[in-house]
Amino acid sequence: MAMTNSICPLCADAGGALVFQAEKFRVIRADEAGFPAFYRVVWTAHVAEFSDLGADDRGLCMAAVTAVEQALREHLQPTKINLAALGNLVPHLHWHVIARFDWDSHFPGAVWGEPKRTSDRALEELVRGKLPRVEQGMAARLARLV
Amino acid sequence: MAMTNSICPLCADAGGALVFQAEKFRVIRADEAGFPAFYRVVWTAHVAEFSDLGADDRGLCMAAVTAVEQALREHLQPTKINLAALGNLVPHLHWHVIARFDWDSHFPGAVWGEPKRTSDRALEELVRGKLPRVEQGMAARLARLV
Repeated sequence: MAMTNSICPLCADAGGALVFQAEKFRVIRADEAGFPAFYRVVWTAHVAEFSDLGADDRGLCMAAVTAVEQALREHLQPTKINLAALGNLVPHLHWHVIARFDWDSHFPGAVWGEPKRTSDRALEELVRGKLPRVEQGMAARLARLV
Repeated sequence: MAMTNSICPLCADAGGALVFQAEKFRVIRADEAGFPAFYRVVWTAHVAEFSDLGADDRGLCMAAVTAVEQALREHLQPTKINLAALGNLVPHLHWHVIARFDWDSHFPGAVWGEPKRTSDRALEELVRGKLPRVEQGMAARLARLV
């Protein structure tokens, strides 16, 4: 299987603000309106499905997802963490790791559904203000994996 | 942490048609209109987040998710597999493992979003007809994990 794909956006670009880069994966902060603490673990090699990875790589990939989740929980105390690997539009393995709050525009629905309420910009800004410390903690946890 | 929660639906019930029961997890077929091959790996203990599990249990949990994914890929050749642990409504760890098809009502959107087209009942029935073999293969893969 090719390691990169010439028309894949996640092969061409980081896909967001780079938080941590390892050989086999990177972690980015996604710019998704309404969800200030929305991160992605992007696998470096161009594979579509989680089960395209061997057991060791699946373990590393989920250790990275877990580290991102733990940093979000430690620093933001979200109502819930949402994890997902969908890839219907961009079939290059990437895990969404999203801190959800009971006040966010879509809670308790999925971020991919219809909004339940208008966004609370003031509360979003409070979260955004904490992201430097979140990402410092995240990078420290991720560094232990590689 | 309590192992069960008296008001949790996934502590009270299987939550779907039971495909495989292990001590620490079960696999069920969910009854979700429009998505005939929609499975869930439900963790037995009442924990909310993936990172509430220790490393060994996270490994077992994802091995179960992978086995379900592999069985779906082998027998159904879906366009894409979607994996997700959300739990905003039912904060008891469960992984959605969904075979997606380019003809399904929501593709390439998430199953939690708005439909893109009407459901194709004939194609759904074709998938449903294959589920006994899918689940036989799934159970065989899962049995190797426990």
